Amino acid sequence: MHAPQAQLIALDWGTSSLRAYLLGAQATVIEQRHLPWGLMQLPERGNARAFEQAFAAVCGAWLSAAPALPVIAAGMIGSAQGWREAPYLALPVDVAQISQQLTRIETSLGKVIHVIPGLIEHSLLPNVIRGEETQVIGALHGRSPTVPLNLLIGLPGTHSKWVRVESRHDACRLRPWPAWITHFDTFMTGEVYAALRHHTILGRTMSSETLTDDAAFARGLEVMRAGVTQAGLLSTLFSCRTLGLTGALRPEAQADYLSGLLIGHELAGLQALSSLPPATSPNPLPIVLAGNAALCRRYQRALTLYGYAPAEIAEQAAAGGLWQVAQQAGLIDLRLRPTHSTDKGSSHD
Amino acid sequence: MHAPQAQLIALDWGTSSLRAYLLGAQATVIEQRHLPWGLMQLPERGNARAFEQAFAAVCGAWLSAAPALPVIAAGMIGSAQGWREAPYLALPVDVAQISQQLTRIETSLGKVIHVIPGLIEHSLLPNVIRGEETQVIGALHGRSPTVPLNLLIGLPGTHSKWVRVESRHDACRLRPWPAWITHFDTFMTGEVYAALRHHTILGRTMSSETLTDDAAFARGLEVMRAGVTQAGLLSTLFSCRTLGLTGALRPEAQADYLSGLLIGHELAGLQALSSLPPATSPNPLPIVLAGNAALCRRYQRALTLYGYAPAEIAEQAAAGGLWQVAQQAGLIDLRLRPTHSTDKGSSHD
Repeated sequence: MHAPQAQLIALDWGTSSLRAYLLGAQATVIEQRHLPWGLMQLPERGNARAFEQAFAAVCGAWLSAAPALPVIAAGMIGSAQGWREAPYLALPVDVAQISQQLTRIETSLGKVIHVIPGLIEHSLLPNVIRGEETQVIGALHGRSPTVPLNLLIGLPGTHSKWVRVESRHDACRLRPWPAWITHFDTFMTGEVYAALRHHTILGRTMSSETLTDDAAFARGLEVMRAGVTQAGLLSTLFSCRTLGLTGALRPEAQADYLSGLLIGHELAGLQALSSLPPATSPNPLPIVLAGNAALCRRYQRALTLYGYAPAEIAEQAAAGGLWQVAQQAGLIDLRLRPTHSTDKGSSHD
Repeated sequence: MHAPQAQLIALDWGTSSLRAYLLGAQATVIEQRHLPWGLMQLPERGNARAFEQAFAAVCGAWLSAAPALPVIAAGMIGSAQGWREAPYLALPVDVAQISQQLTRIETSLGKVIHVIPGLIEHSLLPNVIRGEETQVIGALHGRSPTVPLNLLIGLPGTHSKWVRVESRHDACRLRPWPAWITHFDTFMTGEVYAALRHHTILGRTMSSETLTDDAAFARGLEVMRAGVTQAGLLSTLFSCRTLGLTGALRPEAQADYLSGLLIGHELAGLQALSSLPPATSPNPLPIVLAGNAALCRRYQRALTLYGYAPAEIAEQAAAGGLWQVAQQAGLIDLRLRPTHSTDKGSSHD
């Protein structure tokens, strides 16, 4: 036995962090790196040098060892504030088409990074995702193509996304049940939590840096449960302070309580939008969660407290999705056929 | 003619700033200072030295010229995170009683600062105010005591407060219609606006530092108007970014749009709580706004766009309220009777 051969460098490069994966056959993670080099942490927009430096620092050793490795990336790196804009695909989108629309970034050292497009939903208030479309592809992998899909995929994080995936019959395609993304919603839950915690008076009385108080989390969720208060988030948030002032919420419980308020507001919003049917619905929508494992468990607990069946958690959806897209785009196939190694491009590039 | 004689130093010392007034007869403002030395800007809680230094820097010259001037203060300076805690009075509160419950802070130089208590409303989610009770007293001054009161007083700011003031018949008191504070709501609108603007991705695409685009403000308000979207604030906020990405909201309009979303969410919350009757109510509740003049005009415009009659704006409510409380507490009378100048205390101190 020997170590699996590296076949792909896959980057999940978002607003708050950069995750880099060195992947072998079947998306096996050989090595991964997680750095706080998201777009919000890097210097001003459009500064290619900062992206170049971050890329070289994270992937330089991998590329020195194997210069021909293909590189694929998803996330905000392809936004207007990112390294180069990868134009959005408009909903509804057949997920199999995403790999046919990659944008190339040529680095100063001549390496090409293939960037996966985000998705846009045009409506009264338009909605966009970047990176989560790739996690959706990862979360869908392994499902039987003969069973029609009807799922809600939750991707909690800086900006939580809830993506509706449905099968649509397509007479022109051989595969019986292509997966379509037909709708999604965004909630700025993670970013607002951080802003409230670190840049408002609410954080002043919080004593714990970690989220560990399940009872306080449940209490926050209960307050936001539909019908308990009609005041809206800007008002309800203040209870984090007033319950503390009156001795009804210990300093070490306040961060969890705030998290419960925000996630509860998010789930109540999803229900109000009818994106999430009521827990009592006779036709429940299966829910799959993907992303940070601890956060997925947190949302799983919240959904259970709101009366839903335990949501499935998809593991390594980002790395898996990046692999799937690279494979569908022919990036990996090229390397697997060494006789074609002089063929440097593929049609979609 | 000569300059009016100073009779009171009045401090409105809140979360985000310190306003100091040198007041003469009938609350005439002789001089005022506005400094960004709110509690959030000063060093850690309980640090008396920081408060001493700020007080000396702001009022030192006034006290050097007139060492016997009484000093009164309202606001977060009397909170648990402030200089010294002035215990809350529990609702309902007869506003005339507030002046009888001042807390003394003796500075290291021997000067006494008289701190006005905040108010607390015990309910499922308790609510507190500090400083705004004094602005309410200022806003009420000059109203006929023979007409029963029934008002909603809005105090927009870092934490917006909406205070219900009603007359309650009190057989034990001579004044026919004492004013009672019977309920209030809090919305963290100003602080959340600043946190979103300066510490989330929404601020990244905003090009204007000032709020001047009335149309964008109205557009944000319209989105939050009851019924337009059910998604809740965490979701709707994201439209600030997506409308920008799609070219439907210019960078210089985004700050006003965000302000409209937040103030709209606040007004929708007030309506949902029944604290603010619908604009179509046959028995409208008169609304008085007090506080920062530009912000009051902003809320006045928002209320008008939501169909309400133009709200009255009370001028200099903080300075006026501080003066009223000092007068009711006997702080000013003591100075006006020089024959009693050796009497250093008053009963409530």
